[in-house]
Amino acid sequence: MNPTERMLRACRGEPVDRPPVWLMRQAGRYLPEYRRAREGVPFLEMCRRVDKAVEVSLQPLRLLGVEAVILFSDIFVPVAGLGVAVDFEPGPVVRDPIRSLDQVAALRTPDPRESVPFVMEILRVLRRELEPTKVPLLGFAGAPFTLAAYLIEGRGSKDFATLKRMMYRAPEVLRALLARLTEMTVAYLNAQIEAGAQVVQLFDTWAGLLSPADYAAWVQPSHLEIASKVERVRAPLILYVNNGAHVLDAMLASGADVLSLDWRVDIGLAAKRAGARASLQGNLDPCALAAPAERIAQLVREIADAAAPARGHVLNLGHGVLPETPVGGVRAFVEAAKALPVRGPS
Amino acid sequence: MNPTERMLRACRGEPVDRPPVWLMRQAGRYLPEYRRAREGVPFLEMCRRVDKAVEVSLQPLRLLGVEAVILFSDIFVPVAGLGVAVDFEPGPVVRDPIRSLDQVAALRTPDPRESVPFVMEILRVLRRELEPTKVPLLGFAGAPFTLAAYLIEGRGSKDFATLKRMMYRAPEVLRALLARLTEMTVAYLNAQIEAGAQVVQLFDTWAGLLSPADYAAWVQPSHLEIASKVERVRAPLILYVNNGAHVLDAMLASGADVLSLDWRVDIGLAAKRAGARASLQGNLDPCALAAPAERIAQLVREIADAAAPARGHVLNLGHGVLPETPVGGVRAFVEAAKALPVRGPS
Repeated sequence: MNPTERMLRACRGEPVDRPPVWLMRQAGRYLPEYRRAREGVPFLEMCRRVDKAVEVSLQPLRLLGVEAVILFSDIFVPVAGLGVAVDFEPGPVVRDPIRSLDQVAALRTPDPRESVPFVMEILRVLRRELEPTKVPLLGFAGAPFTLAAYLIEGRGSKDFATLKRMMYRAPEVLRALLARLTEMTVAYLNAQIEAGAQVVQLFDTWAGLLSPADYAAWVQPSHLEIASKVERVRAPLILYVNNGAHVLDAMLASGADVLSLDWRVDIGLAAKRAGARASLQGNLDPCALAAPAERIAQLVREIADAAAPARGHVLNLGHGVLPETPVGGVRAFVEAAKALPVRGPS
Repeated sequence: MNPTERMLRACRGEPVDRPPVWLMRQAGRYLPEYRRAREGVPFLEMCRRVDKAVEVSLQPLRLLGVEAVILFSDIFVPVAGLGVAVDFEPGPVVRDPIRSLDQVAALRTPDPRESVPFVMEILRVLRRELEPTKVPLLGFAGAPFTLAAYLIEGRGSKDFATLKRMMYRAPEVLRALLARLTEMTVAYLNAQIEAGAQVVQLFDTWAGLLSPADYAAWVQPSHLEIASKVERVRAPLILYVNNGAHVLDAMLASGADVLSLDWRVDIGLAAKRAGARASLQGNLDPCALAAPAERIAQLVREIADAAAPARGHVLNLGHGVLPETPVGGVRAFVEAAKALPVRGPS
């Protein structure tokens, strides 16, 4: 079973020999080689320069042997196509936060192949580079609610009080913005699939800030629309909701092929609740990569065992690799995953 | 039924006419009168000066008619008694973060009546002031895990990676520190009860960062010890875990009389799971106080209806009042709670 078969089958709930392994933010500052490649290059330029983005996307494969490669980019890259100016300081900062219907109406409807052609080119080059290895290529996008959170608030926030005030005081603005972003996200993910992405992941970093009722009203509809319009037959869809233990049932009803769980979720209980509806991805606490290698291996075995009743499992962290993570911890994680006993057809 | 009876009965699961109402951080920056009282007074001095602390503790009662008054203080106030220097900038910053067993061994074991006599004096004065109104007085403390998180990390953090690294690399240090803090917290809460607190709340702000397994290992034991050693017959114990939807079952097994839930928890489901084990407190999203008054009233009715199957319910937010909250929103919340239809004996 080659890595692409293993990944696609795990996502679709078909038998595999063992769970495939990769890590969110595996191309990141914890790697000295990444820091060297980034030296003197502003973050957005890293995302736009095909050579640089390809180089750092492939680093974790070459250095650590991960079993999937994900496009190096940022969830805010396609937002430029809407005509919104975003700076990175280093988190995204929106120069003119969106607060009115007029501002939403003024947004452009970009064809991502024209507004961010470099993303498609990075994917095409990566796909070619990966061909001999049969390692699968992942694309990704930020989910509409999370993009809207930044566009309205203007920057990251602990409470996102401005965004939530809009839910109560100007719901029509938020609704219109989410509709535009959902349309953009569908087009963006389908363009990535066209350019070679074999799996796509939707990152909803901030949706976990909402109560179950608010999540149902403001987040779930865009997930359902994306799951129905993205070409999941060509590329399975992974849905990641950070801090989403309380909305697991809604995630299960989203139509996504795989749910990426953070470490707060008991993955064994989630596997039982998921049944045949979705595969699971995750979910080691990124901080646990500071543990000794043998402890990491034990935690990997515990997660794999707990997740075994799921229809499919992709080993990953519950959140992105932290910059202060020792490289040895990441290596121990990948090696422990690859050393898991064979369960299914190999 | 006077406000003290209503509160104590709700906490203990005895019949009441309607849920009592107060708000976490009700004495706070959202109130112009609070900002005036604070003018030119550093935060720690506010906590130490009896006249100031009494004044701001009583403001939400006088201005908004809340049905419980909570000691104005900070979870870090008793930590000074351990011999640890803490500054506020404005969050707590520990000058010499704790990383070794020697540092834990060097901590003093303070008698809170001697190390923070002003806290007991504030409570005694408040209790006298409240006597004619029959409004109950609440004390509080930070939970050991949350205090340890700051003491180890040195300051607030998004990931608390240093704290978590200690879980894997120096568990004996964390274990020793938690034991000392648990002992301190028991003594501190019992001294508050002795000084007049009629209910006490334990705030575990950071415990929700842990996976269910890590919570069981590192948080639950101190909760159990506190619940068994605090004089709950004299003053019921409320346990608040921020972002704790995924550890509700552990919270239910903590021995606390009341579980204070954040807005991510479906309070109706929690009421069913709690049964006769604990009353519930909460749980409106603080951001919802930006809504129009009639919408707030509707949300209060929805929460009260959903929580009705619980053995008892105290209306509150799911987290502290945010500084940018309109006073009118807080007023609407309190008034809507008081206008709830009578259900039990009045």
